[in-house]
Amino acid sequence: MTNTDERRRTPRAGTGRQDWSTWPHYDAAASGFRGYWYPVTWSSHVTGTPRAHQICGDKITLIRDGGRAYALHDRCPHRGIPLSMGNQQFPGTLSCVYHGWTFGLDDGELKAVITDGPDSRICGKVRVRTYPVEERLGMVWVYVPLAGEPPHPIDEQLPEELVSTPFVMGGRIDPRPGNWRFACENGYDEGHAKYLHRTSLWRLFKAMPTWNLTRIERKGRWVFRVQEEQFWSADFPGLGTWSNQRWWKLRPPKAKASNIGNTGAAKKIDPVIAAQEFPGFASVSMPGVLRIAYPKFIHYEFYVPVDDKSHRYVGVMVNFAEGLATLRFYAKYLGFVRWLFHGQFSGQDAAMVEATDAPPERLYRPDVSLTTWRALAEEEYGTKLEALK
Amino acid sequence: MTNTDERRRTPRAGTGRQDWSTWPHYDAAASGFRGYWYPVTWSSHVTGTPRAHQICGDKITLIRDGGRAYALHDRCPHRGIPLSMGNQQFPGTLSCVYHGWTFGLDDGELKAVITDGPDSRICGKVRVRTYPVEERLGMVWVYVPLAGEPPHPIDEQLPEELVSTPFVMGGRIDPRPGNWRFACENGYDEGHAKYLHRTSLWRLFKAMPTWNLTRIERKGRWVFRVQEEQFWSADFPGLGTWSNQRWWKLRPPKAKASNIGNTGAAKKIDPVIAAQEFPGFASVSMPGVLRIAYPKFIHYEFYVPVDDKSHRYVGVMVNFAEGLATLRFYAKYLGFVRWLFHGQFSGQDAAMVEATDAPPERLYRPDVSLTTWRALAEEEYGTKLEALK
Amino acid sequence: MTNTDERRRTPRAGTGRQDWSTWPHYDAAASGFRGYWYPVTWSSHVTGTPRAHQICGDKITLIRDGGRAYALHDRCPHRGIPLSMGNQQFPGTLSCVYHGWTFGLDDGELKAVITDGPDSRICGKVRVRTYPVEERLGMVWVYVPLAGEPPHPIDEQLPEELVSTPFVMGGRIDPRPGNWRFACENGYDEGHAKYLHRTSLWRLFKAMPTWNLTRIERKGRWVFRVQEEQFWSADFPGLGTWSNQRWWKLRPPKAKASNIGNTGAAKKIDPVIAAQEFPGFASVSMPGVLRIAYPKFIHYEFYVPVDDKSHRYVGVMVNFAEGLATLRFYAKYLGFVRWLFHGQFSGQDAAMVEATDAPPERLYRPDVSLTTWRALAEEEYGTKLEALK
Repeated sequence: MTNTDERRRTPRAGTGRQDWSTWPHYDAAASGFRGYWYPVTWSSHVTGTPRAHQICGDKITLIRDGGRAYALHDRCPHRGIPLSMGNQQFPGTLSCVYHGWTFGLDDGELKAVITDGPDSRICGKVRVRTYPVEERLGMVWVYVPLAGEPPHPIDEQLPEELVSTPFVMGGRIDPRPGNWRFACENGYDEGHAKYLHRTSLWRLFKAMPTWNLTRIERKGRWVFRVQEEQFWSADFPGLGTWSNQRWWKLRPPKAKASNIGNTGAAKKIDPVIAAQEFPGFASVSMPGVLRIAYPKFIHYEFYVPVDDKSHRYVGVMVNFAEGLATLRFYAKYLGFVRWLFHGQFSGQDAAMVEATDAPPERLYRPDVSLTTWRALAEEEYGTKLEALK
Repeated sequence: MTNTDERRRTPRAGTGRQDWSTWPHYDAAASGFRGYWYPVTWSSHVTGTPRAHQICGDKITLIRDGGRAYALHDRCPHRGIPLSMGNQQFPGTLSCVYHGWTFGLDDGELKAVITDGPDSRICGKVRVRTYPVEERLGMVWVYVPLAGEPPHPIDEQLPEELVSTPFVMGGRIDPRPGNWRFACENGYDEGHAKYLHRTSLWRLFKAMPTWNLTRIERKGRWVFRVQEEQFWSADFPGLGTWSNQRWWKLRPPKAKASNIGNTGAAKKIDPVIAAQEFPGFASVSMPGVLRIAYPKFIHYEFYVPVDDKSHRYVGVMVNFAEGLATLRFYAKYLGFVRWLFHGQFSGQDAAMVEATDAPPERLYRPDVSLTTWRALAEEEYGTKLEALK
Repeated sequence: MTNTDERRRTPRAGTGRQDWSTWPHYDAAASGFRGYWYPVTWSSHVTGTPRAHQICGDKITLIRDGGRAYALHDRCPHRGIPLSMGNQQFPGTLSCVYHGWTFGLDDGELKAVITDGPDSRICGKVRVRTYPVEERLGMVWVYVPLAGEPPHPIDEQLPEELVSTPFVMGGRIDPRPGNWRFACENGYDEGHAKYLHRTSLWRLFKAMPTWNLTRIERKGRWVFRVQEEQFWSADFPGLGTWSNQRWWKLRPPKAKASNIGNTGAAKKIDPVIAAQEFPGFASVSMPGVLRIAYPKFIHYEFYVPVDDKSHRYVGVMVNFAEGLATLRFYAKYLGFVRWLFHGQFSGQDAAMVEATDAPPERLYRPDVSLTTWRALAEEEYGTKLEALK
């Protein structure tokens, strides 16, 4: 087991750290990182009737006009009334409910003030901030601006495998208490899954080790978690034996890590997924996107900052099937994934995210997954800021 | 239309203003202007049982004794228990529920301490602040003191026409969220009525223009809003036509302003109202009183500051009828004015007042009504403070 | 009545005081005095399932293991999750629900991390604060540490008569709003009882004077309230007569103070109680314990600080009966004491405690009971701090 001992001697970033001073940008991003695209809501929920949303602390109203979705700052500059209380009086515009200030949806310019007549001289002199909008994965995405920075194409930010490949998906969007960083760290956290979730129904279908040895590997803008070795039960000196084996999963799956991590006994891998050559089962990228690659489908979690105290959980299950095969996916997703995985399993996480209270914190070996993610965020965002100078 | 162009060139106070620094007193009066009389509640609600109220941030308890209403600071100086939790043990007094500290209703002096015996030597040494009280319009009014200033007679503050003329009235008092200044500005605001309220049932009985040209005129302690010209529909370049005409009000009333503003086609005017020679339909005065003069009755709104976040809406409809004619008024008021005007119509305002969030703000032409009101308040209160020096 | 006049000339500490600057330690103890034992909950409520509590602002989890109760700081040092959300995985330990960090109940040391395997090198390097625990009066008591100070034996803090004598008891623990000091001051307050509680059902069985003359006497770590003279009704100059006599208690009990204060007509005294030679009916001691000595039983109130805004009311009725006589006590307690005294009567106090708002305050003659208690607390705590230097 020398190489295991080797591994154990590798520096473990962050162990014993008490605060987040090592990651100043991350520490400051309580309300999220600006300068990224975020999914706000389902496309089908964006209609001709404006609705209010909040992302990274920004109040935003979404409205659909001529088939296209628009996002405006949800505040009329006149007296501060939310534009989401208003409605459309003219195509391509949104009028404030209070005095009929009418703004263009594309540029946010004040086009008319109904209660000030056609010769109103304030028109063209006032503007409401607008947000770049795209639609992907059946959701409306908004770009939250960072001082001066022009928005990058959303496809540069989406998981690569979702950009050009056809797929089917199912998912849910839930508002949740707790800071988005705790949600993201929980999602990527190597340590809790097998302990916290051992009581979930999901584990009926999934063998869980007691503990394992992990390697973190950077690949492009993603950080991967690689299971090196799994231990199905352990004998804790002076305390006793603790095992995560269950009678209905007698034979622990081969510990040999497949090319997508600890997915247990090697299974036929979906070609699209295989093509990605994911070094590991779980990976994370900015601005808070988790990817869990199963052999036949990929589960994504987007942690969308609402403010510094709450976030939106966006869980998506993707399958690269086409034609008839899609039916099998929908049956599987609606039949149990939605309830067991995106539901109860994920609900256990939600409880932890709400209860987490750090810093101060005291990290341990498996938290290398957290600290590497923080380092990634710190580095990528730092570079972004540099570029703006 | 030269004189219209004229008008359009008149300076428009406040257009484009972003904050309230121009009106420092007004800006500081978040919890109301002290040194004025305010209606607190209906006279019939003030009984021998003390009740707690709050005006301009002051906690006040009202109690009736020997037919007269009294107002005391709602805090026992002993241990801070609200006196409104207590009751009467002796005529002309109010006793604290906790230890029986007994205060005189007229001067607030500690007259006896039941639990300290007749020889209690603290009596006469402690005093609770009392407030001047008057009853008008079926309501109990309290004078909120301003350092050192002796209270002025309430009749100097009431709308002149209500002081000596007999009248009948109906009204409602509603606690409402939002700052009193937003409520007052909304009430006098020239701009929103025809847009926000176009969906109210009230407009079934009232024609509303799309926009109009307004002149503001000062008369005594009131500022009047005069409709110079009304436009029933408008064609907004690049957007289209917007009209406020309705099929059941085909013939827009003559735009010619009657002697009480845009009340539509000249109607027989109640002599009392005519006698006032109101330059305009709507007028406002300190400390936040709105007057809307209809041909046959007058609607008043008193915006009573509770604290900096909430206020009390006091809406009163007055008719100068006597004898049998009063029945017609009551029938009209209880039949629909109370529900359509003081109810749903006013409820639309309440929603705006709660949602208003200013400064910052960006004013436009019709907001001359707001800025003139602010200037009035600023000037009158400044003079008041001067006089105190 | 010379000696009465005498008495009236005795200095009355605190009369007229406006703030608490005279008692700096007391003023600073908004969340309670540290360095004392506090009852947290009933012993029967402490089981193998950890529960969350708060004392003096400290979050604490209580759990029972092998018959013994343990108290740990309710926060996992890893990520701040409350340990009370976890459960037991090994005897003598408590594991965090999130990652299975497992702490020893006796010393709080990190014994194992289930998700980091047997060789986890963080074990033994992390510790959760533990609290000394004792069980008395059927309750679990926790010692809230004061920097560096070793805990004193709980029996040195308990009312002497409860340490070695057998007794039976009944009681209730209620969470209550309001600062613990207001609760304690209310409990010992000489003034309010006969006025505030005159409307309680309890007074059906207890004569209450209108006012009385009081002497405060220090004995050991207790301060006693001694009724010198009672006045059953009083004539207040200019106001009238006020009496607390009731027809069903026509004969006011002899004012002669028994050896346990104004318990009315001398009754047979329980030998244990008599043995204490209580100078007075009511007494108080640190850290907020009230003792009301009736001839046949003693009522105690422990005011347990939760935080600076709320406390726990612990009311206990003790009887020194043995054998069959205990049945009579239980019948009496469950029959009416629990409902009339610990219930409605005490509920009136709760309302006052919640409403009290001081300082500022304006004290009067009977408040010598308050100021003496504050002086006691100030002195005892000062001595405690001195000893730590």
